[in-house]
Amino acid sequence: MLRALIAGLAVLMVAACASVPAAVTADLEARESAKILALLEAQDEAWNRGDIDGFMAGYWQSEDLRFASGGDVTRGYAGTLARYKARYSDRALMGTLKTTDHEIILLSPDAAVAHGRWQLTRDKDAPGGLYTLVLRKAEGDWVIISDTTTSAEE
Amino acid sequence: MLRALIAGLAVLMVAACASVPAAVTADLEARESAKILALLEAQDEAWNRGDIDGFMAGYWQSEDLRFASGGDVTRGYAGTLARYKARYSDRALMGTLKTTDHEIILLSPDAAVAHGRWQLTRDKDAPGGLYTLVLRKAEGDWVIISDTTTSAEE
Repeated sequence: MLRALIAGLAVLMVAACASVPAAVTADLEARESAKILALLEAQDEAWNRGDIDGFMAGYWQSEDLRFASGGDVTRGYAGTLARYKARYSDRALMGTLKTTDHEIILLSPDAAVAHGRWQLTRDKDAPGGLYTLVLRKAEGDWVIISDTTTSAEE
Repeated sequence: MLRALIAGLAVLMVAACASVPAAVTADLEARESAKILALLEAQDEAWNRGDIDGFMAGYWQSEDLRFASGGDVTRGYAGTLARYKARYSDRALMGTLKTTDHEIILLSPDAAVAHGRWQLTRDKDAPGGLYTLVLRKAEGDWVIISDTTTSAEE
Protein backbone atom coordinates (compact mmCIF):
# COMPACT_ATOMS: atom_id res chain seq x y z
CA MET A 1 0.00 0.00 0.00
CA LEU A 2 2.91 2.32 0.91
CA ARG A 3 4.65 1.52 -2.39
CA ALA A 4 1.44 2.32 -4.26
CA LEU A 5 1.17 5.65 -2.43
CA ILE A 6 4.78 6.60 -3.22
CA ALA A 7 4.32 5.54 -6.87
CA GLY A 8 1.13 7.60 -7.05
CA LEU A 9 2.81 10.69 -5.61
CA ALA A 10 5.76 10.21 -7.99
CA VAL A 11 3.36 10.19 -10.97
CA LEU A 12 1.66 13.33 -9.64
CA MET A 13 5.06 15.00 -9.20
CA VAL A 14 6.12 14.28 -12.79
CA ALA A 15 2.73 15.38 -14.16
CA ALA A 16 2.83 18.61 -12.16
CA CYS A 17 6.40 19.43 -13.23
CA ALA A 18 5.75 18.59 -16.87
CA SER A 19 3.04 21.22 -16.94
CA VAL A 20 5.22 24.01 -15.55
CA PRO A 21 7.26 25.19 -18.57
CA ALA A 22 4.04 26.04 -20.45
CA ALA A 23 2.63 27.82 -17.40
CA VAL A 24 1.51 30.98 -19.22
CA THR A 25 -2.15 31.07 -18.26
CA ALA A 26 -4.58 33.59 -19.74
CA ASP A 27 -4.66 35.28 -16.32
CA LEU A 28 -0.87 35.57 -16.16
CA GLU A 29 -0.69 36.84 -19.76
CA ALA A 30 -3.33 39.50 -19.04
CA ARG A 31 -1.65 40.60 -15.82
CA GLU A 32 1.90 40.78 -17.21
CA SER A 33 0.77 42.37 -20.49
CA ALA A 34 -0.92 45.13 -18.48
CA LYS A 35 2.38 45.78 -16.64
CA ILE A 36 4.28 45.96 -19.94
CA LEU A 37 1.67 48.29 -21.49
CA ALA A 38 1.98 50.54 -18.43
CA LEU A 39 5.77 50.65 -18.98
CA LEU A 40 5.26 51.67 -22.65
CA GLU A 41 2.72 54.34 -21.68
CA ALA A 42 5.11 55.70 -19.03
CA GLN A 43 7.78 55.95 -21.75
CA ASP A 44 5.45 58.04 -23.98
CA GLU A 45 4.64 60.31 -21.02
CA ALA A 46 8.33 60.79 -20.17
CA TRP A 47 9.16 61.57 -23.81
CA ASN A 48 6.31 64.07 -24.06
CA ARG A 49 7.57 66.03 -21.06
CA GLY A 50 11.04 66.16 -22.66
CA ASP A 51 12.52 63.62 -20.24
CA ILE A 52 14.78 61.27 -22.23
CA ASP A 53 16.31 59.84 -19.03
CA GLY A 54 12.79 59.01 -17.81
CA PHE A 55 11.96 57.49 -21.21
CA MET A 56 15.06 55.30 -20.94
CA ALA A 57 14.12 54.03 -17.46
CA GLY A 58 12.26 51.15 -19.12
CA TYR A 59 15.45 49.83 -20.72
CA TRP A 60 17.82 47.23 -19.25
CA GLN A 61 20.71 49.03 -17.52
CA SER A 62 23.29 46.69 -19.05
CA GLU A 63 26.12 46.72 -21.58
CA ASP A 64 24.12 43.96 -23.30
CA LEU A 65 21.12 46.15 -24.12
CA ARG A 66 20.66 46.05 -27.92
CA PHE A 67 19.11 48.91 -29.91
CA ALA A 68 18.71 48.31 -33.66
CA SER A 69 17.53 50.94 -36.14
CA GLY A 70 18.11 51.19 -39.89
CA GLY A 71 21.45 49.48 -40.49
CA ASP A 72 22.95 50.33 -37.09
CA VAL A 73 23.15 48.39 -33.83
CA THR A 74 23.81 50.42 -30.68
CA ARG A 75 25.08 48.38 -27.75
CA GLY A 76 24.55 49.09 -24.06
CA TYR A 77 22.39 51.40 -21.98
CA ALA A 78 24.87 54.31 -21.98
CA GLY A 79 25.33 54.16 -25.77
CA THR A 80 21.58 54.02 -26.38
CA LEU A 81 20.94 56.97 -24.06
CA ALA A 82 23.70 58.94 -25.82
CA ARG A 83 22.15 58.11 -29.22
CA TYR A 84 18.73 59.40 -28.13
CA LYS A 85 20.23 62.58 -26.66
CA ALA A 86 22.24 63.23 -29.87
CA ARG A 87 19.29 62.58 -32.23
CA TYR A 88 16.76 64.47 -30.11
CA SER A 89 18.99 67.25 -28.82
CA ASP A 90 16.18 69.73 -28.15
CA ARG A 91 12.47 69.74 -27.36
CA ALA A 92 11.46 70.61 -30.95
CA LEU A 93 13.33 67.57 -32.30
CA MET A 94 11.64 65.33 -29.72
CA GLY A 95 8.20 66.55 -30.77
CA THR A 96 5.24 64.54 -29.46
CA LEU A 97 5.47 60.73 -29.35
CA LYS A 98 2.41 58.55 -29.75
CA THR A 99 2.73 54.75 -29.72
CA THR A 100 -0.24 52.64 -30.86
CA ASP A 101 -1.21 49.18 -32.15
CA HIS A 102 0.47 47.43 -29.20
CA GLU A 103 0.66 43.64 -29.49
CA ILE A 104 2.17 42.02 -26.40
CA ILE A 105 2.98 38.30 -26.35
CA LEU A 106 4.01 36.66 -23.06
CA LEU A 107 6.48 33.97 -24.20
CA SER A 108 7.16 32.64 -20.69
CA PRO A 109 6.53 33.93 -17.16
CA ASP A 110 9.67 36.10 -17.46
CA ALA A 111 9.98 36.82 -21.21
CA ALA A 112 7.79 38.82 -23.57
CA VAL A 113 7.75 40.59 -26.92
CA ALA A 114 5.95 43.88 -27.49
CA HIS A 115 5.17 45.06 -31.01
CA GLY A 116 3.83 48.49 -31.81
CA ARG A 117 3.77 51.58 -33.99
CA TRP A 118 5.48 54.89 -33.15
CA GLN A 119 4.65 58.33 -34.50
CA LEU A 120 6.40 61.61 -33.78
CA THR A 121 4.59 64.88 -34.46
CA ARG A 122 7.01 67.77 -34.99
CA ASP A 123 6.71 71.29 -36.45
CA LYS A 124 8.48 70.37 -39.69
CA ASP A 125 7.81 66.63 -40.14
CA ALA A 126 6.14 63.54 -38.69
CA PRO A 127 8.50 60.54 -38.70
CA GLY A 128 7.07 57.18 -37.68
CA GLY A 129 7.42 53.44 -38.01
CA LEU A 130 7.23 50.20 -36.09
CA TYR A 131 9.07 48.71 -33.15
CA THR A 132 9.63 45.26 -31.70
CA LEU A 133 10.79 45.05 -28.09
CA VAL A 134 12.06 41.96 -26.27
CA LEU A 135 11.47 42.20 -22.51
CA ARG A 136 12.70 40.17 -19.56
CA LYS A 137 11.35 40.25 -16.02
CA ALA A 138 14.23 40.84 -13.60
CA GLU A 139 13.65 41.20 -9.85
CA GLY A 140 9.93 41.61 -10.44
CA ASP A 141 10.18 44.38 -13.04
CA TRP A 142 9.95 44.16 -16.83
CA VAL A 143 12.87 45.71 -18.72
CA ILE A 144 13.49 46.09 -22.46
CA ILE A 145 16.59 44.06 -23.40
CA SER A 146 16.29 44.56 -27.19
CA ASP A 147 14.65 47.30 -29.29
CA THR A 148 14.33 46.97 -33.06
CA THR A 149 12.83 50.09 -34.64
CA THR A 150 11.83 50.55 -38.27
CA SER A 151 11.11 53.74 -40.17
CA ALA A 152 8.08 54.17 -42.46
CA GLU A 153 10.40 56.19 -44.72
CA GLU A 154 12.17 52.99 -45.82
CA MET B 1 5.74 8.24 9.86
CA LEU B 2 3.42 8.11 6.83
CA ARG B 3 2.47 11.77 7.33
CA ALA B 4 6.17 12.70 7.46
CA LEU B 5 6.82 10.76 4.25
CA ILE B 6 3.96 12.48 2.41
CA ALA B 7 5.07 15.89 3.72
CA GLY B 8 8.63 15.16 2.59
CA LEU B 9 7.51 14.15 -0.91
CA ALA B 10 5.30 17.24 -1.12
CA VAL B 11 8.31 19.47 -0.32
CA LEU B 12 10.38 17.65 -2.96
CA MET B 13 7.55 18.09 -5.47
CA VAL B 14 7.32 21.86 -4.89
CA ALA B 15 11.12 22.24 -4.99
CA ALA B 16 11.38 20.27 -8.22
CA CYS B 17 8.59 22.23 -9.92
CA ALA B 18 9.88 25.60 -8.72
CA SER B 19 13.15 24.97 -10.52
CA VAL B 20 11.57 24.22 -13.89
CA PRO B 21 10.60 27.65 -15.33
CA ALA B 22 14.22 28.93 -15.28
CA ALA B 23 15.54 25.72 -16.86
CA VAL B 24 17.60 27.34 -19.64
CA THR B 25 20.99 25.75 -19.02
CA ALA B 26 24.08 26.68 -21.06
CA ASP B 27 23.86 23.24 -22.69
CA LEU B 28 20.22 23.76 -23.69
CA GLU B 29 20.96 27.27 -25.00
CA ALA B 30 23.88 25.98 -27.10
CA ARG B 31 21.84 23.06 -28.47
CA GLU B 32 18.72 25.07 -29.35
CA SER B 33 20.73 28.03 -30.71
CA ALA B 34 22.49 25.63 -33.09
CA LYS B 35 19.09 24.38 -34.34
CA ILE B 36 17.89 27.97 -34.90
CA LEU B 37 21.13 28.92 -36.70
CA ALA B 38 20.68 25.87 -38.96
CA LEU B 39 17.14 27.10 -39.77
CA LEU B 40 18.50 30.56 -40.71
CA GLU B 41 21.27 29.04 -42.85
CA ALA B 42 18.72 26.81 -44.62
CA GLN B 43 16.70 29.96 -45.39
CA ASP B 44 19.73 31.63 -47.02
CA GLU B 45 20.39 28.48 -49.06
CA ALA B 46 16.76 28.30 -50.22
CA TRP B 47 16.78 32.00 -51.18
CA ASN B 48 20.04 31.59 -53.10
CA ARG B 49 18.62 28.80 -55.22
CA GLY B 50 15.60 31.01 -56.03
CA ASP B 51 13.25 29.01 -53.79
CA ILE B 52 11.00 31.49 -51.92
CA ASP B 53 8.67 28.67 -50.78
CA GLY B 54 11.68 26.86 -49.28
CA PHE B 55 12.85 30.12 -47.67
CA MET B 56 9.39 30.52 -46.10
CA ALA B 57 9.42 26.99 -44.65
CA GLY B 58 11.00 28.40 -41.48
CA TYR B 59 7.98 30.61 -40.80
CA TRP B 60 4.94 29.71 -38.69
CA GLN B 61 2.16 28.47 -40.98
CA SER B 62 -0.47 30.55 -39.20
CA GLU B 63 -2.71 33.55 -39.77
CA ASP B 64 -0.98 35.00 -36.69
CA LEU B 65 2.47 35.16 -38.28
CA ARG B 66 3.61 38.80 -38.14
CA PHE B 67 6.00 40.34 -40.67
CA ALA B 68 6.98 43.98 -40.05
CA SER B 69 9.07 46.08 -42.43
CA GLY B 70 9.26 49.86 -42.82
CA GLY B 71 5.84 51.13 -41.79
CA ASP B 72 3.91 48.04 -42.87
CA VAL B 73 2.74 44.96 -40.96
CA THR B 74 1.88 41.89 -43.06
CA ARG B 75 -0.26 39.32 -41.26
CA GLY B 76 -0.33 35.58 -41.83
CA TYR B 77 1.81 33.04 -43.67
CA ALA B 78 -0.04 33.38 -47.00
CA GLY B 79 0.19 37.19 -46.95
CA THR B 80 3.90 37.11 -46.12
CA LEU B 81 4.61 34.58 -48.87
CA ALA B 82 2.64 36.73 -51.36
CA ARG B 83 4.63 39.82 -50.28
CA TYR B 84 7.95 38.08 -50.89
CA LYS B 85 6.81 36.76 -54.28
CA ALA B 86 5.59 40.25 -55.32
CA ARG B 87 8.77 42.05 -54.17
CA TYR B 88 11.16 39.43 -55.53
CA SER B 89 9.27 38.43 -58.66
CA ASP B 90 12.31 37.18 -60.57
CA ARG B 91 15.74 35.72 -59.86
CA ALA B 92 17.55 39.03 -60.56
CA LEU B 93 15.45 40.83 -57.92
CA MET B 94 16.19 38.08 -55.39
CA GLY B 95 19.92 38.43 -55.95
CA THR B 96 22.16 36.69 -53.41
CA LEU B 97 21.22 36.79 -49.71
CA LYS B 98 23.86 36.73 -46.99
CA THR B 99 22.84 36.92 -43.32
CA THR B 100 25.53 37.58 -40.71
CA ASP B 101 26.07 38.81 -37.14
CA HIS B 102 23.57 36.30 -35.73
CA GLU B 103 22.75 36.79 -32.04
CA ILE B 104 20.41 34.10 -30.70
CA ILE B 105 18.94 34.35 -27.20
CA LEU B 106 17.04 31.38 -25.76
CA LEU B 107 14.37 33.06 -23.59
CA SER B 108 12.81 29.80 -22.37
CA PRO B 109 12.97 26.16 -23.50
CA ASP B 110 10.40 26.96 -26.24
CA ALA B 111 10.95 30.66 -27.02
CA ALA B 112 13.88 32.49 -28.57
CA VAL B 113 14.87 35.70 -30.34
CA ALA B 114 17.32 35.78 -33.25
CA HIS B 115 18.95 39.05 -34.28
CA GLY B 116 21.03 39.44 -37.41
CA ARG B 117 22.05 41.45 -40.44
CA TRP B 118 20.85 40.79 -44.01
CA GLN B 119 22.53 41.81 -47.25
CA LEU B 120 21.32 41.28 -50.79
CA THR B 121 23.78 41.47 -53.68
CA ARG B 122 22.08 42.30 -56.98
CA ASP B 123 23.28 43.52 -60.38
CA LYS B 124 22.00 47.07 -59.85
CA ASP B 125 22.06 47.55 -56.06
CA ALA B 126 22.84 45.96 -52.69
CA PRO B 127 20.02 46.55 -50.17
CA GLY B 128 20.58 45.42 -46.60
CA GLY B 129 19.64 45.97 -43.01
CA LEU B 130 18.86 44.19 -39.77
CA TYR B 131 16.25 41.70 -38.62
CA THR B 132 14.81 40.53 -35.33
CA LEU B 133 12.98 37.21 -35.31
CA VAL B 134 10.85 35.79 -32.50
CA LEU B 135 10.75 31.98 -32.58
CA ARG B 136 8.64 29.38 -30.80
CA LYS B 137 9.28 25.66 -30.60
CA ALA B 138 6.17 23.80 -31.70
CA GLU B 139 6.08 19.98 -31.90
CA GLY B 140 9.87 19.86 -31.62
CA ASP B 141 10.61 22.35 -34.40
CA TRP B 142 11.50 26.03 -34.16
CA VAL B 143 9.34 28.37 -36.26
CA ILE B 144 9.52 32.13 -36.79
CA ILE B 145 6.33 33.71 -35.38
CA SER B 146 7.42 37.35 -35.85
CA ASP B 147 9.90 38.99 -38.25
CA THR B 148 10.86 42.66 -37.90
CA THR B 149 13.17 43.79 -40.71
CA THR B 150 14.89 47.17 -41.00
CA SER B 151 16.52 48.76 -44.01
CA ALA B 152 19.96 50.42 -43.89
CA GLU B 153 18.55 52.98 -46.34
CA GLU B 154 16.47 54.58 -43.54
